[in-house]
Amino acid sequence: MSYNFEPGRIYRMPTHFGPTPGPRQWPDADGRDWKHSARTLTVSAGFLTDAARLDRHLPEGFTLIGEPVVTVDFHYMTGIDWLAGRGYSMIFVSWPAAFTGRHDKASGKFVSVIWENLADPIIAGRDEIGHPKLYAEIPEPRFWDGAQICSAGWMGFRFLDLAVSELGDAAPPSTRPQSDGTMMLKYLPRTGTWGETEIKQVTITPAEEPETAVDRRQTGVGAIRFHRATPSDLPTMYHVVNALADLPIIESRGGSITHSRGSKWSRDQRVLA
Amino acid sequence: MSYNFEPGRIYRMPTHFGPTPGPRQWPDADGRDWKHSARTLTVSAGFLTDAARLDRHLPEGFTLIGEPVVTVDFHYMTGIDWLAGRGYSMIFVSWPAAFTGRHDKASGKFVSVIWENLADPIIAGRDEIGHPKLYAEIPEPRFWDGAQICSAGWMGFRFLDLAVSELGDAAPPSTRPQSDGTMMLKYLPRTGTWGETEIKQVTITPAEEPETAVDRRQTGVGAIRFHRATPSDLPTMYHVVNALADLPIIESRGGSITHSRGSKWSRDQRVLA
Amino acid sequence: MSYNFEPGRIYRMPTHFGPTPGPRQWPDADGRDWKHSARTLTVSAGFLTDAARLDRHLPEGFTLIGEPVVTVDFHYMTGIDWLAGRGYSMIFVSWPAAFTGRHDKASGKFVSVIWENLADPIIAGRDEIGHPKLYAEIPEPRFWDGAQICSAGWMGFRFLDLAVSELGDAAPPSTRPQSDGTMMLKYLPRTGTWGETEIKQVTITPAEEPETAVDRRQTGVGAIRFHRATPSDLPTMYHVVNALADLPIIESRGGSITHSRGSKWSRDQRVLA
Amino acid sequence: MSYNFEPGRIYRMPTHFGPTPGPRQWPDADGRDWKHSARTLTVSAGFLTDAARLDRHLPEGFTLIGEPVVTVDFHYMTGIDWLAGRGYSMIFVSWPAAFTGRHDKASGKFVSVIWENLADPIIAGRDEIGHPKLYAEIPEPRFWDGAQICSAGWMGFRFLDLAVSELGDAAPPSTRPQSDGTMMLKYLPRTGTWGETEIKQVTITPAEEPETAVDRRQTGVGAIRFHRATPSDLPTMYHVVNALADLPIIESRGGSITHSRGSKWSRDQRVLA
Repeated sequence: MSYNFEPGRIYRMPTHFGPTPGPRQWPDADGRDWKHSARTLTVSAGFLTDAARLDRHLPEGFTLIGEPVVTVDFHYMTGIDWLAGRGYSMIFVSWPAAFTGRHDKASGKFVSVIWENLADPIIAGRDEIGHPKLYAEIPEPRFWDGAQICSAGWMGFRFLDLAVSELGDAAPPSTRPQSDGTMMLKYLPRTGTWGETEIKQVTITPAEEPETAVDRRQTGVGAIRFHRATPSDLPTMYHVVNALADLPIIESRGGSITHSRGSKWSRDQRVLA
Repeated sequence: MSYNFEPGRIYRMPTHFGPTPGPRQWPDADGRDWKHSARTLTVSAGFLTDAARLDRHLPEGFTLIGEPVVTVDFHYMTGIDWLAGRGYSMIFVSWPAAFTGRHDKASGKFVSVIWENLADPIIAGRDEIGHPKLYAEIPEPRFWDGAQICSAGWMGFRFLDLAVSELGDAAPPSTRPQSDGTMMLKYLPRTGTWGETEIKQVTITPAEEPETAVDRRQTGVGAIRFHRATPSDLPTMYHVVNALADLPIIESRGGSITHSRGSKWSRDQRVLA
Repeated sequence: MSYNFEPGRIYRMPTHFGPTPGPRQWPDADGRDWKHSARTLTVSAGFLTDAARLDRHLPEGFTLIGEPVVTVDFHYMTGIDWLAGRGYSMIFVSWPAAFTGRHDKASGKFVSVIWENLADPIIAGRDEIGHPKLYAEIPEPRFWDGAQICSAGWMGFRFLDLAVSELGDAAPPSTRPQSDGTMMLKYLPRTGTWGETEIKQVTITPAEEPETAVDRRQTGVGAIRFHRATPSDLPTMYHVVNALADLPIIESRGGSITHSRGSKWSRDQRVLA
Repeated sequence: MSYNFEPGRIYRMPTHFGPTPGPRQWPDADGRDWKHSARTLTVSAGFLTDAARLDRHLPEGFTLIGEPVVTVDFHYMTGIDWLAGRGYSMIFVSWPAAFTGRHDKASGKFVSVIWENLADPIIAGRDEIGHPKLYAEIPEPRFWDGAQICSAGWMGFRFLDLAVSELGDAAPPSTRPQSDGTMMLKYLPRTGTWGETEIKQVTITPAEEPETAVDRRQTGVGAIRFHRATPSDLPTMYHVVNALADLPIIESRGGSITHSRGSKWSRDQRVLA
């Protein structure tokens, strides 16, 4: 008597031991107070680059919109519900783009790659949302000599440095940028028929975050540096890091530090077709 | 001008920076000497359990065959080609089963869960093969007081202990067990329509390993213990560990230690339908 | 031409490359704003134990004073000057005692053992002050299910759990406890003549912390548990953990959580004789 | 009733819980089979440098002998008795020197700094022998593209690379170099009287290792690189790494890889006066 999948429940591999807990399925999630779950320190910086070069890293159906500005966000999170109060960190690399499908249109942020320092959200995000998540060592951020300093590495090879200096308190942006949300490409290769595609879908996380409050925001001068790697340094992702390192930095576009509280029941993602 | 997928090349998320290197796609893989890549120390033990209880963790299409013996294998690997000579460790929990599909039949080893201590092979294995891989801390094995000692934990909670003692040199098994290979369930949930299935496929890795040589093999007395966990201890996988901890250990089925060399071009996996 | 020690400068091994930077010697330490360096989250709990049992762990010259209450403090620190803004965590196990030397008398807190999760302050503290520091893995604290949860382990063996629950805001203690400071035994064995003593001194850190401000303080119900270990589990410190685990817990003595800012130029330690 | 130190037993801080286990004091050390405890992979390389520059890093009483060649040895060890079968890695930076004291004369290897990736032997070695040990992250060595590759870092900053390539099997050195052993400076600063010295002694580990057998030895072309660091990168040891990085590499002096077994009861160290 093999098992049956319980209807309406989310599963991830391995599926053989029951529905899988995670950010979108948690024993006590219903009564959760979203306003007070998770505290996040976000350190961000951006740079203007060459539109034609950036365009080469957009999948079919997407076009650049506005200025070709690459944004790198480090999010250091603690008090996460679905990790029983633990935390982890993530890095988003994104730029503005629009998607035009057969039925759907959307514009907002295109997430090209995400690094996280914990395998569990990497697995959940890839499988359930199509988050392009990879693993990196992400040390705790530090403030030193007037700058907030962030970095990321893999097996001792540091591939990304970001710093924000000359900080001053800033009001929250008065008008929220027009955005439908954050868009990704959910992709799965086919087993056995190597080189073929099993799944290719555009997914979106809507921009609304009604339960998140900003406690403090500062802006300053940002600096981003990706370090080129050999296959020996980063055998599973030298191509990602080198593509980003090769984007020309035409102009820095400022940096910011944001302390915020709250999260949302992250089940609002959907497929765009 | 967005990018196109190069035909015949394997991609994983993020797909935007070119084909993705990994165990099945590596710059210099063609001329590789499989006999000398990777060294593995395997420490294994098994136990006889209750067939009815085990059956509840088999997906549709599978039935138990032979004795209901759960085997836990720790593989400690070094010198891995596609990691530029680095290593990592993995734990397989499996039992004998047969699959009957509409077209295909196979029998061999059913892999219920795999733990690894490196995110990169977790991502590659889940996406390309359907390996049910999760992350665990896996300390280096140690030999102490007459026993080879292995363990695994997550964020400081040790959930698995395995030891093999009273070791004696053993000949390699004279007849290889009849097996078509190692079978898994490749599963992906659907984004947005929560609780629905995007992909559900049975996959198999054929048993042949022509380039692997065993340097030394010892057998002894095995002992396995899964430690029950609360959601607070293991919020993303208490259900997996507890299901295994709840399987009755009717009888220990011996243990072994194997030192081997070599690997194979792991592109022989396929979908069973 | 061998080198000379620069007069008035602090050295630690290796001494061959110049004076050694650290908590008591830092390039720009003079102008430092102590009020704003380091943020600390302290989670504490205590228990009443048997005086006679506790007394066995006091060195010559010390006597218990007041109630025999063992206090365990977890300090999670960030923004540390002499680590260029990085942080680390420490655990103090202490009880009240008085020291009577030939010349000096002092009473306050006797620190029996300290665990830290970074080798650099372990080395500096042992050598410069006589801090009885050992290494432990100390995960970030987490708040879950109404409790602040702390733990410590070594190579995957968790040897200490501490939790504080039923928290309520509390005023800072109205009267500071009468204390001359924190006392330790600085000890160094003699090389070659095994079993003999090279250095044995009582040291003290005065209690004053004029630049430290408490941002928030909560009190609640504390719970402490040391887990007994075998030599195989903790080969370098099973004797420490087991001695603490063997102290009877006659009564819990409450717990607290304190958020504070600031540090001091930690050069006020001295030898008591 | 405070405790007394048991005569003839080695103690380290904290001394309050009984004699301290370690490499020179272990419950079952007497009957130990030294031939089979510990396996070591040693990867070494050296370079000729400027004698005058090197001399500046020799303490009083020492003079350079022979050629001013700096040797860097990475030792990757497993199966260590006093760690209950666990392992760790260490890096020695040394050069040839002679010591002339009031009574003693010795010549051999002067160890300027040692890095290890485990705090427990750092503490034991510093306190009991005067080993100038610091902490570093030392990834497992890897063989890739014809070279054995070693590295070391701290909090994500890689400060040392060593590689040995063009390897060929080599006989063990036919004549052991004339050496009395490995010499160090055991140093402890004085608490309170900052800048004064509590202990300064020259110590030696005799060269004899009667129970160690070499299983395989290869020689090749070595390459060493220390990476200069800022105080922000390596706040506790930029001065050490920069002093080594600043030594001119006049000529590479070959490299080697050695696989060996066995250890010794490491109680033969003594003070030279």
